[in-house]
Amino acid sequence: MTQPTTGAAFAFALEATDGDARAATFSTPHGAVQTPTFMPVGTLATVKTLDPDDLRGAGASMILANAYHLHLRPGDELVRALGGLHRFMHWDAPILTDSGGFQVFSLETLRTVSEEGVEFRSHIDGSKRFFSPESVMRIERNLGADVIMQFDHVIPGQSEESAARDASERSLRWLERCKGEFDRLEMVEHAEGDAHGAPPRFQQALFPIVQGGIHAGLRVAAARAIRSAGDWVGYGIGGLSVGEAKPDMYGMLEVVHPELPADRPRYLMGVGFPEDLIEGVRRGVDLFDCVAPTRMGRNGTAFTSAGRVNVKRQELRADPRPLDEGCDCPTCRRFSRAYLRHLYVSDETLGLRLLSLHNVHFLLNLMREARRAILEGRFDAYSRDWLPRLSQRTVSE
Amino acid sequence: MTQPTTGAAFAFALEATDGDARAATFSTPHGAVQTPTFMPVGTLATVKTLDPDDLRGAGASMILANAYHLHLRPGDELVRALGGLHRFMHWDAPILTDSGGFQVFSLETLRTVSEEGVEFRSHIDGSKRFFSPESVMRIERNLGADVIMQFDHVIPGQSEESAARDASERSLRWLERCKGEFDRLEMVEHAEGDAHGAPPRFQQALFPIVQGGIHAGLRVAAARAIRSAGDWVGYGIGGLSVGEAKPDMYGMLEVVHPELPADRPRYLMGVGFPEDLIEGVRRGVDLFDCVAPTRMGRNGTAFTSAGRVNVKRQELRADPRPLDEGCDCPTCRRFSRAYLRHLYVSDETLGLRLLSLHNVHFLLNLMREARRAILEGRFDAYSRDWLPRLSQRTVSE
Repeated sequence: MTQPTTGAAFAFALEATDGDARAATFSTPHGAVQTPTFMPVGTLATVKTLDPDDLRGAGASMILANAYHLHLRPGDELVRALGGLHRFMHWDAPILTDSGGFQVFSLETLRTVSEEGVEFRSHIDGSKRFFSPESVMRIERNLGADVIMQFDHVIPGQSEESAARDASERSLRWLERCKGEFDRLEMVEHAEGDAHGAPPRFQQALFPIVQGGIHAGLRVAAARAIRSAGDWVGYGIGGLSVGEAKPDMYGMLEVVHPELPADRPRYLMGVGFPEDLIEGVRRGVDLFDCVAPTRMGRNGTAFTSAGRVNVKRQELRADPRPLDEGCDCPTCRRFSRAYLRHLYVSDETLGLRLLSLHNVHFLLNLMREARRAILEGRFDAYSRDWLPRLSQRTVSE
Repeated sequence: MTQPTTGAAFAFALEATDGDARAATFSTPHGAVQTPTFMPVGTLATVKTLDPDDLRGAGASMILANAYHLHLRPGDELVRALGGLHRFMHWDAPILTDSGGFQVFSLETLRTVSEEGVEFRSHIDGSKRFFSPESVMRIERNLGADVIMQFDHVIPGQSEESAARDASERSLRWLERCKGEFDRLEMVEHAEGDAHGAPPRFQQALFPIVQGGIHAGLRVAAARAIRSAGDWVGYGIGGLSVGEAKPDMYGMLEVVHPELPADRPRYLMGVGFPEDLIEGVRRGVDLFDCVAPTRMGRNGTAFTSAGRVNVKRQELRADPRPLDEGCDCPTCRRFSRAYLRHLYVSDETLGLRLLSLHNVHFLLNLMREARRAILEGRFDAYSRDWLPRLSQRTVSE
């Protein structure tokens, strides 16, 4: 097992554990990420409704973008020509790109899967496209994120074992092809860099994705096969939070936990409700992402320390209190529930931004506090304090 | 002529004139406004897509809100119960409310005008409503802006003299009724304030509006009648930029200029294209407002020092330059035309905000520079430098 050539730019320093929960620092070419943390999702090179300064203000240290969406619009080659994703979206800190596997498989009737890759039709103009492990690596290389995810075969959360095995094994074969193309592109870039006397353009790490549905045996097999295939900078855990029951998701995290190396970050893909973050941290997860805080924000729902608040509710009409009395985000420091409700009812986009900002701030803060609790050896008490409150829904007072 | 009772909280200090152009400081209960300046419009207690911090960052010192819209939603009594408009929208600096005259008369088939007032149907739910000079004063008192505009009869820009005279004379009679109700409400509040040992809640100034369409004689008559009716803190000039030709608008400003007292601010209502601001300043105007910078921003058009730029244009697809190379706004400091085009094409709301922010910043900066030019006695050269550039349209490079 050899260190990937780009590994030198990355490091993962474990600072404390508390049970299976971990506090660490993940170093990348664009800076360090203190974990556990939540990564806001900027699908199209923008975290919907938010400004990069908003994200910095909320303490975001790493964000996501999406290879499928950016390939279709504005095009990954254009992003590269403009200096890569960091410069394009004015985000100087770490970025991770998802490979588009999830998006392509979500297209359902619009796609055909083969061993070679996936033929699909663009959701924008219906044009015919083809993604292979190799083409996705070229796209993610062009975008230039610090961490890029392998192209994988994603299946529904409650799939039968045979379907889950097929997809997981295909994802493993695709991982080998991703790595081959990733290494080839890196050599080409090195050569080009040497020719011009400059270093290669983007230093990147390729993360594999552990699949296997809700089948413990498949998860273990996938984790072991991935580890035999290379010494990875970090590991994605995919195919969860896609329709399966919550206990199944938590069970899979427990199965995978001892199979992954303790000295590398683990990223639970697409998971972003407050209670799931805490349950994930408890089971050894370091990184999370999800569109939930911004999507729910745009739909008028806020995470709070007393459960969810729907700002469209009539009871909030004259409520002078902030969304969450204990929150110090720019929304709660400045605006009343009555004002936020007014913005929503009046279709004012400031409302979408203020609620998205609060929700992102809430998750980042939840993870900052979880980290502090781990460092101080009181994560269990921390999670027992939070979980009952977070599971409340649509509370309005 | 007596000073209005609230006049003590307001002052207007003329600092320099250059031709008819004026540089001054307008003091209000919520702070000073250096003029000439542009006031961004927050119709529904939010300047569309922007955050109060954005406005402060752009150097906005006074903003608008609208009595008609806020009366319908969320209701002026609710705003008052929540501490008034400043607290509701978290804007601690001066605010001006328009009376809703313009909005009510824009409803066309939905309204019936009588001497008593205007019966109309809400554009939101079709419910029957009635605005009189007295009811509008109560609404604007509840909202609590520093400057409140009289309820006036607004007519199309090219109206015949007889229609314009009727509307102007009605506006004068309504001004007397506005003043009567304004003074009565102030006495009531004073009495309530005394009873509780506290000062009256909102210190406000009522501005009359000079009407008269594009008829010089009517404009002069209106200005003179308004001055005989009281000693006003400031003067609105209304009924312009509503469909008449630009030379007609400029001509009316020249006619009105000598009729208004030099030691009071003049506010040209609803005017906000860059070239019109400069032409207005040249004719003695101190304050402007318009939805143009935010509306055009939401439509993808930017004001720049080389004319207008439409960010949706294909030519901008790979353009790495900022919207305006000379601009230091947060949009131009951070983002390329290519990125802004991508946001627009992808329907990302960040694009609406970034372009609105740039446009508001552009107009505020244009007025800051005009002020400096007046103070330095070079306004004529300043306007001759700007005007030919500003009149260019949809330039893309």
